[in-house]
Amino acid sequence: MTRTLITNGMIVSATGRASGDVLIDGETIAAILAPGQAAGLGISADRTIDATGKYVVPGGIDVHTHMELPFGGTEASDTFETGTVAAAWGGVTTIVDFAVQNTNTSVHERLAEWHEKAAGNCAIDYGFHQIIGGVDEESLKAMTYLVDNEGITSFKLFMAYPGVLYSDDGQILRAMQNASESGAMIMMHAENGIAIDVLVAQSIARGDTDPRFHSLTRPAEMEGEATHRAIQLAKVAGNVPLYIVHMSASEALEEVAAAQHAGLNVFGETCPQYLYLSLEDHLAQPGFEGAKWVCSTPLRTKHQHHQNDLWKGLRMNELAIVSTDHCPFCFKDQKELGLGDFSKIPNGIGGVEHRMELLYQGVVTGEISLERWVETCATTPARMFGLDRKGEIAPGFDADVLIWDPNNRTKIGINDKHHMNMDHSAYEGFEIDGKVDTVISRGTVVVENDTFVGKVGHGKYVKRGLSRYLH
Amino acid sequence: MTRTLITNGMIVSATGRASGDVLIDGETIAAILAPGQAAGLGISADRTIDATGKYVVPGGIDVHTHMELPFGGTEASDTFETGTVAAAWGGVTTIVDFAVQNTNTSVHERLAEWHEKAAGNCAIDYGFHQIIGGVDEESLKAMTYLVDNEGITSFKLFMAYPGVLYSDDGQILRAMQNASESGAMIMMHAENGIAIDVLVAQSIARGDTDPRFHSLTRPAEMEGEATHRAIQLAKVAGNVPLYIVHMSASEALEEVAAAQHAGLNVFGETCPQYLYLSLEDHLAQPGFEGAKWVCSTPLRTKHQHHQNDLWKGLRMNELAIVSTDHCPFCFKDQKELGLGDFSKIPNGIGGVEHRMELLYQGVVTGEISLERWVETCATTPARMFGLDRKGEIAPGFDADVLIWDPNNRTKIGINDKHHMNMDHSAYEGFEIDGKVDTVISRGTVVVENDTFVGKVGHGKYVKRGLSRYLH
Amino acid sequence: MTRTLITNGMIVSATGRASGDVLIDGETIAAILAPGQAAGLGISADRTIDATGKYVVPGGIDVHTHMELPFGGTEASDTFETGTVAAAWGGVTTIVDFAVQNTNTSVHERLAEWHEKAAGNCAIDYGFHQIIGGVDEESLKAMTYLVDNEGITSFKLFMAYPGVLYSDDGQILRAMQNASESGAMIMMHAENGIAIDVLVAQSIARGDTDPRFHSLTRPAEMEGEATHRAIQLAKVAGNVPLYIVHMSASEALEEVAAAQHAGLNVFGETCPQYLYLSLEDHLAQPGFEGAKWVCSTPLRTKHQHHQNDLWKGLRMNELAIVSTDHCPFCFKDQKELGLGDFSKIPNGIGGVEHRMELLYQGVVTGEISLERWVETCATTPARMFGLDRKGEIAPGFDADVLIWDPNNRTKIGINDKHHMNMDHSAYEGFEIDGKVDTVISRGTVVVENDTFVGKVGHGKYVKRGLSRYLH
Amino acid sequence: MTRTLITNGMIVSATGRASGDVLIDGETIAAILAPGQAAGLGISADRTIDATGKYVVPGGIDVHTHMELPFGGTEASDTFETGTVAAAWGGVTTIVDFAVQNTNTSVHERLAEWHEKAAGNCAIDYGFHQIIGGVDEESLKAMTYLVDNEGITSFKLFMAYPGVLYSDDGQILRAMQNASESGAMIMMHAENGIAIDVLVAQSIARGDTDPRFHSLTRPAEMEGEATHRAIQLAKVAGNVPLYIVHMSASEALEEVAAAQHAGLNVFGETCPQYLYLSLEDHLAQPGFEGAKWVCSTPLRTKHQHHQNDLWKGLRMNELAIVSTDHCPFCFKDQKELGLGDFSKIPNGIGGVEHRMELLYQGVVTGEISLERWVETCATTPARMFGLDRKGEIAPGFDADVLIWDPNNRTKIGINDKHHMNMDHSAYEGFEIDGKVDTVISRGTVVVENDTFVGKVGHGKYVKRGLSRYLH
Repeated sequence: MTRTLITNGMIVSATGRASGDVLIDGETIAAILAPGQAAGLGISADRTIDATGKYVVPGGIDVHTHMELPFGGTEASDTFETGTVAAAWGGVTTIVDFAVQNTNTSVHERLAEWHEKAAGNCAIDYGFHQIIGGVDEESLKAMTYLVDNEGITSFKLFMAYPGVLYSDDGQILRAMQNASESGAMIMMHAENGIAIDVLVAQSIARGDTDPRFHSLTRPAEMEGEATHRAIQLAKVAGNVPLYIVHMSASEALEEVAAAQHAGLNVFGETCPQYLYLSLEDHLAQPGFEGAKWVCSTPLRTKHQHHQNDLWKGLRMNELAIVSTDHCPFCFKDQKELGLGDFSKIPNGIGGVEHRMELLYQGVVTGEISLERWVETCATTPARMFGLDRKGEIAPGFDADVLIWDPNNRTKIGINDKHHMNMDHSAYEGFEIDGKVDTVISRGTVVVENDTFVGKVGHGKYVKRGLSRYLH
Repeated sequence: MTRTLITNGMIVSATGRASGDVLIDGETIAAILAPGQAAGLGISADRTIDATGKYVVPGGIDVHTHMELPFGGTEASDTFETGTVAAAWGGVTTIVDFAVQNTNTSVHERLAEWHEKAAGNCAIDYGFHQIIGGVDEESLKAMTYLVDNEGITSFKLFMAYPGVLYSDDGQILRAMQNASESGAMIMMHAENGIAIDVLVAQSIARGDTDPRFHSLTRPAEMEGEATHRAIQLAKVAGNVPLYIVHMSASEALEEVAAAQHAGLNVFGETCPQYLYLSLEDHLAQPGFEGAKWVCSTPLRTKHQHHQNDLWKGLRMNELAIVSTDHCPFCFKDQKELGLGDFSKIPNGIGGVEHRMELLYQGVVTGEISLERWVETCATTPARMFGLDRKGEIAPGFDADVLIWDPNNRTKIGINDKHHMNMDHSAYEGFEIDGKVDTVISRGTVVVENDTFVGKVGHGKYVKRGLSRYLH
Repeated sequence: MTRTLITNGMIVSATGRASGDVLIDGETIAAILAPGQAAGLGISADRTIDATGKYVVPGGIDVHTHMELPFGGTEASDTFETGTVAAAWGGVTTIVDFAVQNTNTSVHERLAEWHEKAAGNCAIDYGFHQIIGGVDEESLKAMTYLVDNEGITSFKLFMAYPGVLYSDDGQILRAMQNASESGAMIMMHAENGIAIDVLVAQSIARGDTDPRFHSLTRPAEMEGEATHRAIQLAKVAGNVPLYIVHMSASEALEEVAAAQHAGLNVFGETCPQYLYLSLEDHLAQPGFEGAKWVCSTPLRTKHQHHQNDLWKGLRMNELAIVSTDHCPFCFKDQKELGLGDFSKIPNGIGGVEHRMELLYQGVVTGEISLERWVETCATTPARMFGLDRKGEIAPGFDADVLIWDPNNRTKIGINDKHHMNMDHSAYEGFEIDGKVDTVISRGTVVVENDTFVGKVGHGKYVKRGLSRYLH
Repeated sequence: MTRTLITNGMIVSATGRASGDVLIDGETIAAILAPGQAAGLGISADRTIDATGKYVVPGGIDVHTHMELPFGGTEASDTFETGTVAAAWGGVTTIVDFAVQNTNTSVHERLAEWHEKAAGNCAIDYGFHQIIGGVDEESLKAMTYLVDNEGITSFKLFMAYPGVLYSDDGQILRAMQNASESGAMIMMHAENGIAIDVLVAQSIARGDTDPRFHSLTRPAEMEGEATHRAIQLAKVAGNVPLYIVHMSASEALEEVAAAQHAGLNVFGETCPQYLYLSLEDHLAQPGFEGAKWVCSTPLRTKHQHHQNDLWKGLRMNELAIVSTDHCPFCFKDQKELGLGDFSKIPNGIGGVEHRMELLYQGVVTGEISLERWVETCATTPARMFGLDRKGEIAPGFDADVLIWDPNNRTKIGINDKHHMNMDHSAYEGFEIDGKVDTVISRGTVVVENDTFVGKVGHGKYVKRGLSRYLH
C-alpha cells in the first residue's frame, strides 16, 4: 500500500485547528502527527504533499444530489460520471444521491436501477437515500429491508408535487412510524404542494407565466406550514428523526428552531442558492433568463430577512448541513421546456462543484467560522447520515481529504471554473477568496495542479449506518 | 304594541354593569333608564317585571348548533323545535345552525332543505352558516350569492372527515380566496383528518375499539397542526377572517394566540365540554359508557394543561366565543351504533340548554368575570357573525333578554333540568350557583316561573351582515 | 335640575354603535332611547341638541397628565386651569393627574399640595394617581391609606431617573407587595435608568449633546428590559396588577404581550406621540429644534417597526389605553434649559388637547375601529382605574359626553386649534378628518360652537375605586 | 523526554469515536494512530498503557471552581492543593478558578494574591477568571491589561450579593463595554440580588429561617429576570459575549435560548447539582441538614420542569458547559454559621471531584451522548475560555488525558470515593456505572490503580487566549 504524508498544513476540524501532519496508508488515515513528529518517529512516505499555508480538512460530503434524475420530461444533465468528476473538482469526496420510487413501482427495482446508473461510473464515493413516492404496504416493508441490509438509512418524502412524488399526511405518518421503528431518518421536501398547485394554475390562467411566478406561487408561508406539519406528524409517529431539506424561508427556519428548542430530533438543511441568490436579482431577470434559477423550494425575495436568517441559522446550528440539491438542467432544450409556462421548467440548480467554495466565502465575510465550514459541509453530513468512516481527519477513517488554499482565488463561470454538464452557471461571475488545491479520495489524489487526475470508477458505493447525530 | 318594563335589575354588558330599567316596546328595546327615571318620566308599561337582585343581560347566542343533522347513518336527535325550546330553557335567544352542502350537491338546494326544516318550527330566532363540503366552481359562486342575498356570511370547512365533509388544502385555499373577496368569515374544523384516519384504522385493527380510543387517535398535535395550517392558508388567501371552531387543545390555542399577536383576524371558539369534561373522567368510563362523550375535537386528558389553558384563553380573549357545538344523539340506538367500534359512534354532545349555566359557574369560581360571561356568550357572538340587532341590551336592538338569578341554583340531569331530546346528559349531576329566571325573545316572554311559555314558530330566520368584530 | 336631550346621533360604545337619543338629567345620564322613543314617551327636555350625522361618545378620559409638574428646575407650563380647559377643547371630560412623593417627603403632604393646586381650578373632573418616589415604611403605610380612604387606587413607580424618582428593585417589590394586598394597581415608568444614565454621561462627554441623543442614549432594549423586569417583580409580589405607562418600543410591547399570553394582569399604555412622531422626523430636526420632542420614553427611529407594532398592539388590545403623558414645556426659557446638553431639556410633550383627534385619525386611516377609539380613550381608562361612573354612555353614569363631527375637519397648530399653555405644538400642521363638536361635562355643556363655555371650578375631584378591568 | 503510548482504546471526541492509539511525547500529544499503526510504523514508547475496553478522552476541564475562597466570614475548605488533587481523582486536568476583586481593592493586587495561593500548590493545571466586584476607572483599565498581558480573558460580575460583589446595571454596562472592546467574555451570576435581599429579610423576620427558605427567597423568576437583563445590557454594550454561570431555572434557560435564536453570543452553564438535586429531596431535609445544599443559584423544586429542561438544554447545546461551581464548606463550624438564619450559611457545594462521574451517568441513562459528555466537560470549556492547547485529543495539544472505564463502577460518599476537604458529600450514596481509570496531566500519570500518583506543584498556570467559541 502507498503511504502519503501531508505535511505542514493547518488541520481544521469541527471543533478546532492545529498544525500537524496527516499520514495516509492505502485508503485510510493512518495517523495524525504533531509538527516534526513524522521526522522524529522516522516515518517515511511514498509521497509527501507540502500543505504549508493551507488548510487540511475532511473532503466535502454533499448529501443532496440528483444525478441523471428523470424530471419533468427530461433528465438531470449530469451523469454520475460528469457529476462526480465535477464534485471532485469542488473538493467533494462523497455524495449521497437519491434512488426514486413512485406509486406502483418497486423500491427494490428502482434502487437497482440507480445502482446500475452509478456503479463503475463515479469518480468519488457515493451512497443513496431512497425516495418513497408511493407509500404502501410493499414500500414500507422495503424501507425496513433497506435499513437492515442495503446501507440505506434515510428516506425522503414529498409534501409537494401531487401526482408525482407527493405523499398525503396519512402516508407520511405511516412512513414515519416505519422509520421510527427501524431507526431511520425521514427527509422531507416541505412545501404544501396541494395549495401551491392551485396558485400555480391560477397564475398560469392569469397569464403570469414568467419564471419569477415560480417563486410567487410558492409563498414562504407554504414552506413554513409544511415544515410545521411534518414536525407534528413526526411527533405523533413517535419522535422519528426528521431532516428538512433545502430550506429557503425564515418561516420554515422558525419551525425547525422551535422544534429543536422543544428537544426534538428535527434538523435543517439549506443550500448555497438560498444563501446567495434571490428572486429579484436572479429569478426575475428579464425574459426567460430567470429559468436558470427555477428550483424548489424557490429563491426568495431579498426584501425580507430570509438570507440573513439562514446565515444566522447556520451559525447557531439551527441549520445543521449545507448541501447543494444539485439537479442540473441545461438552458437550451431543457429549461426551455417551460417557455411560456414556468410550471413546465425543470426544477433544479447545479452546484455540486461549488458548495465548498461558496460556503468558504461565508468564512471570509465572517458569516461562519472556519470550523463551522468543516462541520456543516463534512462532519455533520457524515454523522447525520451514518457515513461512519467519513467526515473527519481521524485515524482509521477513509483518507478523504481536501487541501484548501486560502491564499488563492477561484472565479466561477462557464468560461472559468466550471466542470458540470451544464451550458450555464447559476453562480456565473462569483469570485471566491480561496481555492480547492488538492483533493484526495480514499488515499488517491483525484485533483491537483488544476487537473483532474482521478479515475471514473474509483468511487465506491458506501453502505450507511443509522444517524450518529441524534440528541 | 305591548310595552314591558324590566325594573330594578343590574344590567350587565361586556364592559360593565349598572342598575337600571329596560323598557321594551313590541319586539325592540325602547330605552334603558337610570333607576327611578321610569317613574320620573311617567313611563307606563303593560307589564312590569321586577328584576330586583337579578342580572339583566342580553339573551344568549349560540353560534354553533346542529339540529336534525344527518351524521353517521343517523340524525341529531333534537329537531329545530325541541332544540330551540331547550335553548330557550337555557337562556338562549338565538342560535346559528349549519346548512350542509356536500360534494355533488347544490348549495342552494341544501340551504333550502335547512330552511324547510327550521321554518315555523323554532321557539327562538335562528340563522345559518353554510357548510361547504364540496368546494368547486359552483359552490364558490353560491358562497358569494349567499353573502350578497341570503344573509349567510360565514362558511364552515372541514380539515377532518375525509370522504364526507373534508376539503383538501387547495379547496380550502379557493374557498378562503372567495371569502376574502366577499368579506365573509371562514369557520374551520381544524383537525388533520387524513392522519387521524390512519390512526383510527390502526387502533381498530389492534383491537383498541373502546370509546376512549376516539380521543387517543385524535392527538392534540393534530388539532394544533391543522389550526396552524388553516392560519397559514388564510394568510396566503389574503388574510381572510378565520374562526376556529370547538377548540379543545392547548396546541391549537397557542397557534391562535400567535396569529393574534401577529395582528391577524384569527379567532377561537371553545365549548363547555372542553372546559369541564375530560378523557379520564368521562370518555374513558368503563365499557361503552364513554360513548356519551364522543365528540370531535375530542375530550382531552386532564393530565396536561388543556382546561387551564382554555380558561386562560377565554379570560384573555384568545378565545372569543363559547358555543356548544350542540349535536345530540341518544345513547340507545344512536351512540350504540358504535358498539365494538368507536369510529362508528355518532360524534356529538348535546349542550345548547346548558351553556349559559355552565359558563356562569366559571364566574362563580373566578375563572371569568361577569362581563366576560356576557361578552363570550352573547355580545361577541353577535358582533362576530353580523347579528346586527342582537347581543346587547341597547335601545333599538331586538328585545332578547335573559334575566338571571344569581341567588338561585340549577341542577342539571336527566331527572332534573333537562329539556333536550336526549336519553342522557353529558353534564349529569352538575350543579350551578345561579339560574335562568326569565327569558324574553323579541319582546315576548318565553320562559318564566320554570315554565316554557313561548310558542314554536315564534322564532324567525335572521339574515346576518358581515362580521363587525374584525381588527 | 336641567334636562338635556341629545337626539338623532349615532351612539358609539366599545362594542357597537346604534342610532338613539341620550337623555341627561342634571349631572347624570337618565336614559338612552331608541330613535323616536323620546317623542313617543312624551319626554321633554330643557334643551335639545341635534346630533344628526354625528357620533355621541363618552367624554375622553386621559389617565396620564402632569399639570404644574415641577421637573428639571422648571414646572410644566399648563396649570390645572389651562390644562383642563385645553382638555375640554379636546373632548376630554376627565383627567387623572399625578401627585408626587419623593424620598424624605410625606405622601400625605404631597397629595395635599396637589389637591390644593387643582381644587377649584379645573374645568373638568379630575382624579389623582400617587407617585411614590421614596418607598419606605411610611410611604407604604400611606399607600394603603390612600386606597382605603382617598380614592387613590393606583401608584406610579419609576425605574428611571435615579436620584430623583427612581426606586430600586427591592423598593419596587415592596410597593408591589403592598398593592397586591390592597388591590391597587402599580403603574410603571419602565426604563433602565441606571444604565441609561451611564449612556447619557458618555454621550455628553463625547460631545454628542443635541436633542436627538436623548433617544440614542435610551435604547429600546432598555425599555424592553425594564418592562420585563417589572413583570417578573409583579409575579414575585403576588401577581399584582401592573400597568406599563407610555410604551414606545416594540421590545416593551413584546414583553407585555407575552405576559398577557401567560394570563397575567399586565396592561400597556401608549401615547399619540409614539404612534405618529419619530426620531428622524422630529427629535433629530436641525439645531435645537428637536428639543420640542424630548420626552421619556423617547421617540423611536422610524426605521424599525415600532409605530406599526404599537398600532397593531392597540388593535389587538395588547395596548389597552391611549393617554397623552401631557407634560408641556415652552420652548423659550424651558426647553432651552438644555441648550448644549440634551440631558437638561425638561422631558415632556403637551398633547392633552389632541388625543381624541389624533386617535380618531387612526380610525379614518383604518388603524383602529370606531369602537376601539371609544374603548381605548374612554371606556377602558375608566374601567382600568376605577372611575365607576364614567367611560360609557349608560344610564346612571355621569353625563360626560363628546359629540364628534366626522364630517368636519381640525387643523392643529399654534395658529390653528391650540389652547394649551405652550409656545409651540408637537403636532403643528396635523390635519384631522373629524372635529370635536360639543363637549358635556357632568351635564353641563363646556364646549360648543368653537367656544369654551364651561367654567373653571366646575371640575370636581373623583374618588376612584379599584380596577374593574382585571382578568 | 518520556514517550507514553495509550493503545487499544476508543478515542472519543465531541464529534465522534474511533479506535486508535495515542502517542504522548513529553507533555504533548505527539500522534494519534489508527489501530495497528504504531507497530507498523515501528513506534516504541517508554510506557504503554493498555486501554482495551476503555474510553480515551480529553481530561476534564472545570471552568468554575472556588478554592480557598473567603466567603461569609469563613473560607472555602479546599485549598488549591486539596482541591486540585480531588479534581485529578475526578478525571479533571484543568481548573479555571476565580481571583476576586472588590470595591476599593486593586485588581492587580488581588490577582497577585490568588497567584500566590495557587502557585506551586496545584496537582493539575489551572487558570484564572477575574471577578470584578468593584467596577470603576481603575478596575476597567486593569481588565484590559489582564486580557493583553496576563492570560485572563474572562471577567465575572454579580447581579446578586449587594454590598459584597454586586455591580449595578451601570457598572455592568461599563464592564461589558470594556470587554466588548478587548474581546473578553463576561461571565454573569444572574440573580436579582436587590429584590432577593428584600425577600430574605422578610423571611427571616417572619421566622422562616430553615435552609429551605434559601431557595424560597430566590425565586426562579429572579434568575430568569437577571438573565434577561444581562442579555439586554450585553446587546447595548455592543454584543459582548456573555456567559451565564450556574443556571438552575427553566426561566433562565428560556432567556438564553431566545438570545441564541436571535443569533447572540450568549452561552449557558449548568452544574451537576442542578441536574440531580432538588429543594424537596435535599435542601428541605429536616432540621439543619439541608444546609449542606445551600448554594446560589439555589436548588429548585422538583415539581416543575427545571431538571428536565436543563438536561434538554444540555442536549441541544442551549447549555454549552457543565462546571461544578465547586465551593466546598464543611458542615461542622462552617455551614453551621447559619444555624437559625439560613442567610448566614456559607453558599456552596463541593463537586470538583464528581462532575465527570455524574455527567457520565447521564450518558448511561440516555440524557446525553458520549460525545456530548466530552464536549460539555472538556472540549467546549477549552474553546469557550481560550485554553488553546487543551480540550481535545489532538496532536500538538497538551497531553491531558482521561482513560475512563465504562465497565467499572464508582460509589460516591464520605466513606467511599471522596477526596475533597469536606466532612460530607452533597452526592452521598450516588452510584455511577463507570469509573475514572487513569488520569494524565501534561504527559504525567497522576491517577492510576485507585491511587493518586501525581505531585503537588506539577500543575502550572495557563495563560488563556480569547474565546474560540463565538458565532
